[in-house]
Amino acid sequence: MMFGDQLQKGTALVVGASQGIGLEFVKQLLKDDRIEQVFATYRNSKSATDLFAFEDNAKLRCLQAEATREADIAQVAADIAAQRESLHLMVNCVGVLHHGELQPEKSLRQIEAERLLNYFQINSIPTVLLAKQLQPLLKKSDRSVFATISAKIGSIEDNRLGGWYGYRASKAALNMFLKNIAIEYSRKNPQTTVVALHPGTTNTRLSKPFQRNVPPEKLFPVERTVTQLLDIIDRLTERDNGSFFSWDGSRLPW
Amino acid sequence: MMFGDQLQKGTALVVGASQGIGLEFVKQLLKDDRIEQVFATYRNSKSATDLFAFEDNAKLRCLQAEATREADIAQVAADIAAQRESLHLMVNCVGVLHHGELQPEKSLRQIEAERLLNYFQINSIPTVLLAKQLQPLLKKSDRSVFATISAKIGSIEDNRLGGWYGYRASKAALNMFLKNIAIEYSRKNPQTTVVALHPGTTNTRLSKPFQRNVPPEKLFPVERTVTQLLDIIDRLTERDNGSFFSWDGSRLPW
Repeated sequence: MMFGDQLQKGTALVVGASQGIGLEFVKQLLKDDRIEQVFATYRNSKSATDLFAFEDNAKLRCLQAEATREADIAQVAADIAAQRESLHLMVNCVGVLHHGELQPEKSLRQIEAERLLNYFQINSIPTVLLAKQLQPLLKKSDRSVFATISAKIGSIEDNRLGGWYGYRASKAALNMFLKNIAIEYSRKNPQTTVVALHPGTTNTRLSKPFQRNVPPEKLFPVERTVTQLLDIIDRLTERDNGSFFSWDGSRLPW
Repeated sequence: MMFGDQLQKGTALVVGASQGIGLEFVKQLLKDDRIEQVFATYRNSKSATDLFAFEDNAKLRCLQAEATREADIAQVAADIAAQRESLHLMVNCVGVLHHGELQPEKSLRQIEAERLLNYFQINSIPTVLLAKQLQPLLKKSDRSVFATISAKIGSIEDNRLGGWYGYRASKAALNMFLKNIAIEYSRKNPQTTVVALHPGTTNTRLSKPFQRNVPPEKLFPVERTVTQLLDIIDRLTERDNGSFFSWDGSRLPW
């Protein structure tokens, strides 16, 4: 049975919602009549003004959380549990490609161990912390989806160009974590479908410096990206647990 | 052309050679008449006494190095460059599954962010630092092999059981790094073949606490493991660049 058909009086959590794909998930979920409540996390209130603009919508609850810190994620889970019995949709949109001195490595010469670790810390680990802390909210009685934004560039099989060492490896690690979570949930949270989603190149701050060689028809406005991903999420069935989907609904190799 | 046929007056480097698979690589390479010099790194002299026992062999040079630290790897490269014109074989055997408080996670409840990072630091990153620092020693004039010990349990595709979150994800990340190195080397070091090797479950300290459910015929003595892996290395051709091999020579999925 498709997930979307069972999404009534649903509760959603968007992690990393202050901008880009995360912010757009919040916008579209606020408009979705099946969703009763949307929790949205942001790291820094200074860069979350676009999210706060929606705060007069009673469906929205904004929560401050640094997704790399387990205590913060535990607090998010506690805040949700205080208000709702269960969670139906979780989308983790936290990710970094470039940030100040952190830039994707064009070649081995640009490798630095500390920066590689930084990619794992931000792009790989939060999803596992979320899986751990949200587990009690993903009930056996309700269908739910646990999704994380991954990237096709994190497919080892599909890697033809090389480069971007830290970003690629952190997404491959994320994909392994996701597969592991899918397996563990299939035993303990059998109603939860766990997926990795490739959004396609989207016109956000993350892709901005690298858009030059992207043909215009392959650079999606963020509205289109999130519509496509929500469409995939709606159509998920139990059999899709542990899969890696591209924006067009096709499956990607690991 | 197979790598082994061209291995004359060769120079080898074994990283993480103080025990287990690394130590056995040193033993077998010292006996190999095609290899003129074997460099072997160890982290801690206190636990490297088994390696030091071979130091009266003039072919062997032991070098202290913490493989997670780029300055140490750069010093290893400099020490080799001071004595040899080029490097023909590099095998990175550094890896951790358990160490004191670091234990593979049976379930999400045992997840801790710091320990996950520790797995990436030890199991994933050193291979990239080696690829960066050894690049000038892998000459266009000489065939060479750049190999790292990975693990089938790091195959996302092959993951059926889950668990061991940090170890699995760090090996998946290592595999992505290796694919990236293979691509970059194919342009700049076209004579170097880059591979990930799955040794099979080997009777070493690493597997010791987890051997109970391994059938005896699937638990290899370390001598057998290294003989098998050296056989694979010998048979490598240019076309194998960027592949992930199991101990029996079959290719593993990512």
